[in-house]
Amino acid sequence: MQKIRPGTLAALLLGSILTPSPLLAAPPGADTIRAAALTDTVAMDFTEGLTTEVGPRPAGTPQEARARDWTVAKLKSLGFANVRAEPYTMPVWLRGRDEARVTSPFPQNLVLAALGNSASTPEKGIEGEVAYFPTLADLEAAPEGSLTGKIAFVSHAMRPTQDGSSYGISGAARRQGPSIASKKGAIAIVIRSIGTDNHRQPHTGVQMWADGVKPIPAAALSVPDAEQLVRMVSRGQPVRLHLTLTSKMLKDQPSGNVIAEIPGSDPGAGIVVAACHLDSWDQGTGAIDDGAGCGIIAAAALQAAKAGPLRRTIRLLMAGAEEVGGNGGRAYFDAHGKEAHAMTMESDFGADRVWRVDFKLPQGHEALARRIAAGLAPLGVGASRLPAGGGSDIEPLVKAGVPVIDLQQDGTRYFDIHHTPDDTLDKIDPAQLRQNVAAWAVALFETANAPEKLGIN
Amino acid sequence: MQKIRPGTLAALLLGSILTPSPLLAAPPGADTIRAAALTDTVAMDFTEGLTTEVGPRPAGTPQEARARDWTVAKLKSLGFANVRAEPYTMPVWLRGRDEARVTSPFPQNLVLAALGNSASTPEKGIEGEVAYFPTLADLEAAPEGSLTGKIAFVSHAMRPTQDGSSYGISGAARRQGPSIASKKGAIAIVIRSIGTDNHRQPHTGVQMWADGVKPIPAAALSVPDAEQLVRMVSRGQPVRLHLTLTSKMLKDQPSGNVIAEIPGSDPGAGIVVAACHLDSWDQGTGAIDDGAGCGIIAAAALQAAKAGPLRRTIRLLMAGAEEVGGNGGRAYFDAHGKEAHAMTMESDFGADRVWRVDFKLPQGHEALARRIAAGLAPLGVGASRLPAGGGSDIEPLVKAGVPVIDLQQDGTRYFDIHHTPDDTLDKIDPAQLRQNVAAWAVALFETANAPEKLGIN
Repeated sequence: MQKIRPGTLAALLLGSILTPSPLLAAPPGADTIRAAALTDTVAMDFTEGLTTEVGPRPAGTPQEARARDWTVAKLKSLGFANVRAEPYTMPVWLRGRDEARVTSPFPQNLVLAALGNSASTPEKGIEGEVAYFPTLADLEAAPEGSLTGKIAFVSHAMRPTQDGSSYGISGAARRQGPSIASKKGAIAIVIRSIGTDNHRQPHTGVQMWADGVKPIPAAALSVPDAEQLVRMVSRGQPVRLHLTLTSKMLKDQPSGNVIAEIPGSDPGAGIVVAACHLDSWDQGTGAIDDGAGCGIIAAAALQAAKAGPLRRTIRLLMAGAEEVGGNGGRAYFDAHGKEAHAMTMESDFGADRVWRVDFKLPQGHEALARRIAAGLAPLGVGASRLPAGGGSDIEPLVKAGVPVIDLQQDGTRYFDIHHTPDDTLDKIDPAQLRQNVAAWAVALFETANAPEKLGIN
Repeated sequence: MQKIRPGTLAALLLGSILTPSPLLAAPPGADTIRAAALTDTVAMDFTEGLTTEVGPRPAGTPQEARARDWTVAKLKSLGFANVRAEPYTMPVWLRGRDEARVTSPFPQNLVLAALGNSASTPEKGIEGEVAYFPTLADLEAAPEGSLTGKIAFVSHAMRPTQDGSSYGISGAARRQGPSIASKKGAIAIVIRSIGTDNHRQPHTGVQMWADGVKPIPAAALSVPDAEQLVRMVSRGQPVRLHLTLTSKMLKDQPSGNVIAEIPGSDPGAGIVVAACHLDSWDQGTGAIDDGAGCGIIAAAALQAAKAGPLRRTIRLLMAGAEEVGGNGGRAYFDAHGKEAHAMTMESDFGADRVWRVDFKLPQGHEALARRIAAGLAPLGVGASRLPAGGGSDIEPLVKAGVPVIDLQQDGTRYFDIHHTPDDTLDKIDPAQLRQNVAAWAVALFETANAPEKLGIN
């Protein structure tokens, strides 16, 4: 991660140093908005309501449908315009029983959770000898056919990082491990959870079968259970595991996005899209992933518009089905991709404080980046040289060239909780949630009111 | 909790201030033993082996029988004498399915675990309206019959304490809540877990039905689930809960204690009993409760005897069935209560550091207490004015008048983990475990070698 030397005044080229200059004070509007947003109650109220009154809301299920109904009603009551659900259909993977038992030499149960798109075992389960691989590279190095009849077990050494970058590296065991194990003949695979905690809470998550690969049962052991299995294997005797991972696939189930707007005064200036996702994994109530993100963007849009009419329309995209592959984001782009989008942003990395802002703006928009960075600096947010990347739900917009800003949240403890039953409201720190609202309100205010021409189409 | 003013030199009466005096240096033997014990590897090896190779070991089950076999073999290999299991039989409560679902107004699953001796629901479960009581006193104040057809829900506000005293207060909701709810007509009861964490790990534990009370299904919600249910109830609409808590009772199942000794040189000087319990709750691997306690006492006995022959026999009592009512401790007393017991101690409060020593010695044994306190002081252990109480497995000995010493462990994080699936090896801090071994080695050495006449019979 690159650091900015404090006090540097420098060439303000695109993607270059964005240290707020003392000569360029934030406009009074942003100061007022930031201060008000730090006392926001809407984000917590939204998150508390969604996680309590709906709870878990897996993609393509009746719970996700309830989440859409709840959200449409809530956003209307908050005064948003053009509030509606935009439906689409999708295939749905549904979890059944998740059970594991070491049958020998040390009989005992282990705690695990099937990964998305796991094949189902028969009701009576399957049993095999464990083939242990300390890393994904070790699994990749196993000869073809060497896993025939065995259950692959892949570990790794994920550590917390502020920017979440360890997820990319360690997460490969979940994303690619199942397909690799199947190709080599394994009857199933268990991985150490992609998580940084030490609780018996397995971290589920989606994985996609590579082309032509036969789906096999695939699951994540909790971190303590993975460590237990390593201890057993290290004793040198064959370890046999019995797995019951029942699940099913359904075709053409209803899912959908929720859209809401604060209309702008200049219809020709393009839309600012603020995104989050409404769906969650099935075992927690989706507080940090991503109820809080939806609370933040709704609250921030209201805070941004408090100071008076904004030039551009702010459109909330509360996407469905992010967790299982970004179906909602694609459906949005299919329906709206040709509209004039001035900017896009997403909140989908928990509720801990924003610590860095990244930009990906067209050449010539350095002044806008400076104004935003100046408005964020009092919140302890630094500007980076790294290009913004957006999130899953706005990926099609970003790929199409829509400018994007990332308000990077502190991810140090995010992977303690991510995709586990522990993703519940109590994990949210109200003060950090409010800081998020303030950062977002500043960014939305500056972007929606920018006099510059922005975006594409 | 009483505090000792540093530097006070005072009347060394029984139960009075036991500050180590600079005039009474610990004998060289204790220093040597303490230093060696701080590098101990036996306690961790024992705990790792028991929790890995046996894992969960509920009282009266085949897993507990495997724990006895494992322990007998292990203690023999460590060089203990007279190693044997001492069997008895007992009734056993066995967990079945633990499922809860809010059916209205906010349908979603909750995470909970049945309490010991809970009645079973039918396979298809039961359903009722939740009657919420913020405290046990509120439940007690409910009119007779007012809970007919309802599911009582009792909360509380347990906070961590170093000495574990909050367990006594908050734990009443578990120990007495079910009987009170049944008397008032409830069809079931759920309580907030007696725990100080915020994970979705319910804390089980035993409860005994009061005389004449009809058993009802009784369970503990995890702390986040209890908070979720409070939020639902606080919205003012009736909340309906569906519970499936299947369990069964078996009669006359085999359980047993494991006994091992380091024989002393003076058969007439009485036995020093060091106790722990081998059984654990069913959902964790019983690392802090109480695998570590057994590892500590075994390691400490070996460390204490390293310096040469001891006057008294040290007898390890690794009791069965502590969690469900202390059957092992009673069986030991029935079989051995008439033998000459010089002293008794128990380790059953996790593996965090010993921070205080309490004594309950006969009049005239102040010098022994001073020697022990002097040997412990370099480990950061202070002596208290509070009388020692012992643990469940030595309760019958203590009641019979056997002197007792408590090496009090730091309980600040104990109730984050206690009786949950999270009670696993990774929760043990090796350095604190070794400090426990050193404290125990000093206390056993001084006690077993004391020239004084000790004990009863």
